[in-house]
Amino acid sequence: MREALKMYAERLSAFGKFEMVEVAEGHAGSAKPDMRKTKLAEAQNLTKNPPQESFLVALDETGQQYTSPKFTELLERQAANGRLVVFLIGGSWGLDESVLKQADLTLSLGKLTLPHSLARIVLLEQIYRAHMISAGREYHK
Amino acid sequence: MREALKMYAERLSAFGKFEMVEVAEGHAGSAKPDMRKTKLAEAQNLTKNPPQESFLVALDETGQQYTSPKFTELLERQAANGRLVVFLIGGSWGLDESVLKQADLTLSLGKLTLPHSLARIVLLEQIYRAHMISAGREYHK
Repeated sequence: MREALKMYAERLSAFGKFEMVEVAEGHAGSAKPDMRKTKLAEAQNLTKNPPQESFLVALDETGQQYTSPKFTELLERQAANGRLVVFLIGGSWGLDESVLKQADLTLSLGKLTLPHSLARIVLLEQIYRAHMISAGREYHK
Repeated sequence: MREALKMYAERLSAFGKFEMVEVAEGHAGSAKPDMRKTKLAEAQNLTKNPPQESFLVALDETGQQYTSPKFTELLERQAANGRLVVFLIGGSWGLDESVLKQADLTLSLGKLTLPHSLARIVLLEQIYRAHMISAGREYHK
């Protein structure tokens, strides 16, 4: 998974500003973490210093689903508006409600529950795909 | 990607009969393949010898979406009926219409277009997740 992630991150760097930030998990290493507290701590870590002029996208199964072309349009629109798109992916229990409320958009990758690592790869692949579509390059389905 | 695939395949083998079959791509190595012909050739390769008592699931973005618990119920129901669940994933252009018609179910992993390799990993992860849910084991989101 790490290798696939690295590959997409490298490909994306070629298209310009791309950064991957990991914040600490909210359970602080506890063996039997409390779900609510964990999610709250993660929410605070995630939303502490939002970049200026950013468009916050929270990932959640309950969010809106996009086709790849529509997702491409979304990224193009934000880029045209000079806004940095920030994607927030939760930990094992997903994102806290407060993050969803704060976000400009809640995005769903599908109804299925994905582990964090896989959600991250699917998202990176879609961002990469969007760049390829924007650049008018051929890209396999 | 291959490593992640291998990991899930190994985990799944622990739960019983699991087999991954790759059929030849339909373009026979052509540099400028014809989409229709390619998909037809792949369809023939994929549906040539369906196992007896099988439940055919074709993967397509236009299909039905399941939550992970509902997907688990689907697999449990087929297992209870003694049917082998066969998942069919298309190549670069997806599956031919004829495969979708022949399938017992068309399943969508989400509206986003995924490359074959990633669709395969997401599917394997969900089958593994379903087994964990069925076995009543704790499994991270």
